[in-house]
Amino acid sequence: MLRFTTAGESHGPALVAVLEGMVAGVPLSADDVNGELARRQQGYGRGRRMQIESDSVEFLSGVRAGETIGSPIAMLIRNRDWKNWSEIMDPARNASDPENRKRAVTRPRPGHADLSGMLKYDRSDARDVLERASARETTARVAASAVCRRFLAEFSVRVGSHVVQLGGIDASVPEPMPDDINAAVADSPLRTLDRDSEKRMIARIDDAKRDGDTLGGICEVVCSGLPVGLGSYVSWDRKLDGRLASAVMSIPAVKGVELGLGFEAARLPGSRVHDEIHADRAAPRAGGVHRASNRAGGLEGGMTTGEPLVIRVAMKPISTLMKPLATIDTETRDPATAVAERSDVTAVPAMGVIAEGMVAFVVAQAFLEKFGGDSLGETRANYDSYIARINERR
Amino acid sequence: MLRFTTAGESHGPALVAVLEGMVAGVPLSADDVNGELARRQQGYGRGRRMQIESDSVEFLSGVRAGETIGSPIAMLIRNRDWKNWSEIMDPARNASDPENRKRAVTRPRPGHADLSGMLKYDRSDARDVLERASARETTARVAASAVCRRFLAEFSVRVGSHVVQLGGIDASVPEPMPDDINAAVADSPLRTLDRDSEKRMIARIDDAKRDGDTLGGICEVVCSGLPVGLGSYVSWDRKLDGRLASAVMSIPAVKGVELGLGFEAARLPGSRVHDEIHADRAAPRAGGVHRASNRAGGLEGGMTTGEPLVIRVAMKPISTLMKPLATIDTETRDPATAVAERSDVTAVPAMGVIAEGMVAFVVAQAFLEKFGGDSLGETRANYDSYIARINERR
Amino acid sequence: MLRFTTAGESHGPALVAVLEGMVAGVPLSADDVNGELARRQQGYGRGRRMQIESDSVEFLSGVRAGETIGSPIAMLIRNRDWKNWSEIMDPARNASDPENRKRAVTRPRPGHADLSGMLKYDRSDARDVLERASARETTARVAASAVCRRFLAEFSVRVGSHVVQLGGIDASVPEPMPDDINAAVADSPLRTLDRDSEKRMIARIDDAKRDGDTLGGICEVVCSGLPVGLGSYVSWDRKLDGRLASAVMSIPAVKGVELGLGFEAARLPGSRVHDEIHADRAAPRAGGVHRASNRAGGLEGGMTTGEPLVIRVAMKPISTLMKPLATIDTETRDPATAVAERSDVTAVPAMGVIAEGMVAFVVAQAFLEKFGGDSLGETRANYDSYIARINERR
Amino acid sequence: MLRFTTAGESHGPALVAVLEGMVAGVPLSADDVNGELARRQQGYGRGRRMQIESDSVEFLSGVRAGETIGSPIAMLIRNRDWKNWSEIMDPARNASDPENRKRAVTRPRPGHADLSGMLKYDRSDARDVLERASARETTARVAASAVCRRFLAEFSVRVGSHVVQLGGIDASVPEPMPDDINAAVADSPLRTLDRDSEKRMIARIDDAKRDGDTLGGICEVVCSGLPVGLGSYVSWDRKLDGRLASAVMSIPAVKGVELGLGFEAARLPGSRVHDEIHADRAAPRAGGVHRASNRAGGLEGGMTTGEPLVIRVAMKPISTLMKPLATIDTETRDPATAVAERSDVTAVPAMGVIAEGMVAFVVAQAFLEKFGGDSLGETRANYDSYIARINERR
Repeated sequence: MLRFTTAGESHGPALVAVLEGMVAGVPLSADDVNGELARRQQGYGRGRRMQIESDSVEFLSGVRAGETIGSPIAMLIRNRDWKNWSEIMDPARNASDPENRKRAVTRPRPGHADLSGMLKYDRSDARDVLERASARETTARVAASAVCRRFLAEFSVRVGSHVVQLGGIDASVPEPMPDDINAAVADSPLRTLDRDSEKRMIARIDDAKRDGDTLGGICEVVCSGLPVGLGSYVSWDRKLDGRLASAVMSIPAVKGVELGLGFEAARLPGSRVHDEIHADRAAPRAGGVHRASNRAGGLEGGMTTGEPLVIRVAMKPISTLMKPLATIDTETRDPATAVAERSDVTAVPAMGVIAEGMVAFVVAQAFLEKFGGDSLGETRANYDSYIARINERR
Repeated sequence: MLRFTTAGESHGPALVAVLEGMVAGVPLSADDVNGELARRQQGYGRGRRMQIESDSVEFLSGVRAGETIGSPIAMLIRNRDWKNWSEIMDPARNASDPENRKRAVTRPRPGHADLSGMLKYDRSDARDVLERASARETTARVAASAVCRRFLAEFSVRVGSHVVQLGGIDASVPEPMPDDINAAVADSPLRTLDRDSEKRMIARIDDAKRDGDTLGGICEVVCSGLPVGLGSYVSWDRKLDGRLASAVMSIPAVKGVELGLGFEAARLPGSRVHDEIHADRAAPRAGGVHRASNRAGGLEGGMTTGEPLVIRVAMKPISTLMKPLATIDTETRDPATAVAERSDVTAVPAMGVIAEGMVAFVVAQAFLEKFGGDSLGETRANYDSYIARINERR
Repeated sequence: MLRFTTAGESHGPALVAVLEGMVAGVPLSADDVNGELARRQQGYGRGRRMQIESDSVEFLSGVRAGETIGSPIAMLIRNRDWKNWSEIMDPARNASDPENRKRAVTRPRPGHADLSGMLKYDRSDARDVLERASARETTARVAASAVCRRFLAEFSVRVGSHVVQLGGIDASVPEPMPDDINAAVADSPLRTLDRDSEKRMIARIDDAKRDGDTLGGICEVVCSGLPVGLGSYVSWDRKLDGRLASAVMSIPAVKGVELGLGFEAARLPGSRVHDEIHADRAAPRAGGVHRASNRAGGLEGGMTTGEPLVIRVAMKPISTLMKPLATIDTETRDPATAVAERSDVTAVPAMGVIAEGMVAFVVAQAFLEKFGGDSLGETRANYDSYIARINERR
Repeated sequence: MLRFTTAGESHGPALVAVLEGMVAGVPLSADDVNGELARRQQGYGRGRRMQIESDSVEFLSGVRAGETIGSPIAMLIRNRDWKNWSEIMDPARNASDPENRKRAVTRPRPGHADLSGMLKYDRSDARDVLERASARETTARVAASAVCRRFLAEFSVRVGSHVVQLGGIDASVPEPMPDDINAAVADSPLRTLDRDSEKRMIARIDDAKRDGDTLGGICEVVCSGLPVGLGSYVSWDRKLDGRLASAVMSIPAVKGVELGLGFEAARLPGSRVHDEIHADRAAPRAGGVHRASNRAGGLEGGMTTGEPLVIRVAMKPISTLMKPLATIDTETRDPATAVAERSDVTAVPAMGVIAEGMVAFVVAQAFLEKFGGDSLGETRANYDSYIARINERR
């Protein structure tokens, strides 16, 4: 069972990701991970930190001579700003405690984990919460998922994303979609396929920045090249749609998820929602059929159909506003304005990259559940055998 | 760790739900479960089966003298139609096999698990798939969740739902919402708070029925009475938003989930999305604060805030159409029209009840994680202690 | 991931087992399960109940026309004595409550879950505990494991057991062991391969019965036919030795587990413990080697070696003595003698059958993890491919 | 749910442990962990590595100002020998590959994971296996468990161990046991309470070293101060005996586990095995009773009784012999002698420390399941409330 754990505070010494259960023999280099980390840091509207932190990974385990060896893959990503924070974040109790206390964060931000976290974990300094409840944590997710992507690439499975709405401005979606979405948006500052809308999005970001405000948006993740039959309908917790929803909804600031037509499917009659089935010998991964449409977003009955997964993810605006909202001071219970650390105006393009990663993880997990194997060669043989099987009997 | 498993085919002898991890001492009667089963069976637009099956539960274990005793609670719900299906669904291999084979389902429905399930599990009769990949399975979910609801009721936690859109017709949502949503919609055929829209919804259902078509819609689930701090931000798989999304997206035919403002949050600036915080001694469950609004839907940082959870769930139209869609015959690979068993036109109101149940389960699970305890009295003492703690320090 | 859940009280209406994750296409009949249930009920020294209850299974789901279909397999085993207990065990609160209370069990047995369970779950009647903390629960385990055995049989994996000590009397173990251990002990009242010792064991049981005492013993479980490489060393919770130990130590009254030489391995030098390796083209499952000995019991580094698994399991005497031990009355806190329901003198032979079942479950789970697949044909193809792979490269 | 993951190869840059689910507010310093790491490195009979590696921990996350903050605790322990291995273990594919290949390990050791791991993961160099399937991994387990110990210490729960047999020489066990076992054995080279036997054990180690052989032995772990009711009988996978067995059997080279009397319990009649119950107001943690004996080792029905846990763990001799055993060369299939890297003669004292750690983890996990809570104060209040409850009603 493929699983991963992350650890690390935003201003601690480092982030850690441990991916467990990956097969041996997958070609893997630091560049494979660093490329994904770099994509996560892009996007117009990011703050200063994205410049100071060009993330790079160190493999602590699980990789040797350029390939995975089957053991847990531990990855370390250092926080380059650590030297400026080492006193405030010191794990040891030290003499300067009173000094740290003076800098305690006690004006929790609406929309953030600050207040609920302080109450839950009985903390008087919101820093103990916000350091972990930070989008910085997603760096470790992207590292873990980069290994999953590398694995999936061996089976020609590709995961990409693009921004379809930002700050209320919709991007049009081309028909047909480019095969390699990430290549198509690589030089777009907002990772969108609609360059005209992008200009207006940028203007809106500039406006929001001037106003001390923040913006959300929607990304669409597409995963193509999957075989039919990943996930299962037999038990509620094995349905792939639920597992995908969980994975992307767990990304900080995400408030909505839809698959295929999503909410639109709730408005149309069945005759205009379901995807008719046609025999197609050129589609072996789908068992020799294709769908006349893909309104289901590649999922029926909690299983892949062989059509691309299409997942849209809605992100609310960042909750750190330079023009801060009303809150209380948790020490005094008096009204206050929320703490306002320097932050991004929007992180929607980055969220798309993170969502790709979470999708890649869930898909790789389901892939290994179905095909088993402990080495790339073994999994590949099992995969090939299944594809042959679902085509031969027809 | 609270967990549940369901088993059972749509036309098998019975459905089974096993709920494991519920504390001892929770008052529980068959009526508590049967009331929820009945709600699941209501709704204008349902087919014949809802009439023939008035579901009722038999406790096989875990309940004695009107209360839970801590052991797994197994519940049996018989399929009343079993006698008509006992030959087709016989677990034993028997002489009439050729007869069964004649009735094999080989024209998979677009939108259903039929085809992907046949390929995945190597089945030549889609009945082996559709019997389990049936909305009938949700009966067992509702039974398991009814126990969770009964537990939550001891802490004045309430879960209700109403239909906010059906077949493209929106219902207006009253402001403020009624305290007891389920009571307010109890006599509404479509479980909606907008009786004017309901009339048009009914007309649309009648139209769809005449056309051999089906309809989807959107329900809103509201869970009130929760304390601050259920769920956690510390690890991706413990965030309550992700767990809720998984639970409701796993309901058959659900294609979209949103929390609070949901997709709308992606369109607004941060200053109009985040909920400002005010001190409020009258809100002990929330740690002595209230929010000026609840656009977050009761969740910040993957934790409850003390405000009501608000979750909207989009359901696509049912995939069994009386005017069936194009498919193939899996035996011959020839074009065909999909199998068309008698079915409902819409099941949106029922989906709301099921979604309530899944929310109740996830919330009860998170509740027990936070408060621990093996008996109702112990959990209650721990709960009370926490509420006192988060109020005393201020 | 193969998993199973059991539910049911000893004198409730029925026991339930739900096995989830079994592949489709495994031939399965009620007789396959009933045969195992019957084996669990045998053994000299059992009490009256074994006569009145000839257990038989009803498949509620997951099996059709004589084979598994991939969905959860729910099995019901009725308690034949239910009619005599239906009032005492009634799930409903009823007018005869005072009557039930009079029969409350308040003199907990040393060695049993009674007292700790009452404290943990806040119960004043030990019946609420002992009904679940009963060896009767293992009936459901045996049912679930019978399906696993049927699956493993398709790969010529066999699980058997025999009694190697009972009440302090050791049985000698033949060299070599019979291929089919269970066939060899089928007509032995105590399931042992040493008929001379068995006579003395029987005499000791008769003595103990006369004394109102009880006896324990040791069984040895052997699982042969496994391929090399099930389980893994890479993470502590995936090691097969730990998983096997957990599964058998969870059987009621088990207090010790050893693998291969077990505790004896701790006394010998390494040169007399480790199993030397020799090439052997006639051993494809083991990757073309055999061991000169099997002191490791088929496990190195938490993985199967291809040699038979050998697991010894120690059971303490049953804790219900007809000559009862000192305890307290939980109502009065006064000294008392423990409750003494009619019970067995020893259940060691049955424990062996249960331990076989737990081993079969763990092994089937590890088998499916390695080979994946959703149908018997798919898993078999993957298995064959692996065996070919580990032999071809040499 | 408390959980931990480890990563790291024996000669890689570092080991990593991530502990997830620990409550906030537990006092914790690097010394707390380093003290346990040092104990693991002690013991007569260890090789050179124990001298060169004085392990010390770096907290990467989860600890601030001397206490836990609720987020995952990532700990890094560097391998001090890394500079000598950085080329052989380089994660990157590099020009010196042919050189590495020359040093490939192809003569797998009997008793080690080498051969099964090579076959399972399709590796031609056993180093890819043995680097992870190394006792070095237990360093990370000890680090994770040190945090659990620190938590348990807040509730006066203590875990200690001593060697009761080594190389076939038994140590006598004092009656009564010292309260602080670890203090009592702190200056014993073999961590035993019987100094006379220790001299003979040391002589045997010297003999074995001269012979190029290795030795195993048995440790006894004792955990005192626990409340009644941790673990549960209600489901097989929640029984604490099974979970403890799994945790210690997963330690490398462990082949046997017993609880309380263990295998001896299988030889005695019930009247001499079960622990009679007496009222005792001085034993509030046990619910106001004590047992006349503790033959059960503190566990009945898979739950703690309030008496000390007593667990004996058997370790086979180390599988790296300087006088190596027969094996094959995996490249040529020819007979060979196993690879013989410099290694310890025995590691039994260290195994005791590791087993203590695994017990501490399982117990802390069960403790948090029962008492819940997200901060030390909250968990403590819940614990106190339970102890009061189980005493008040009597």
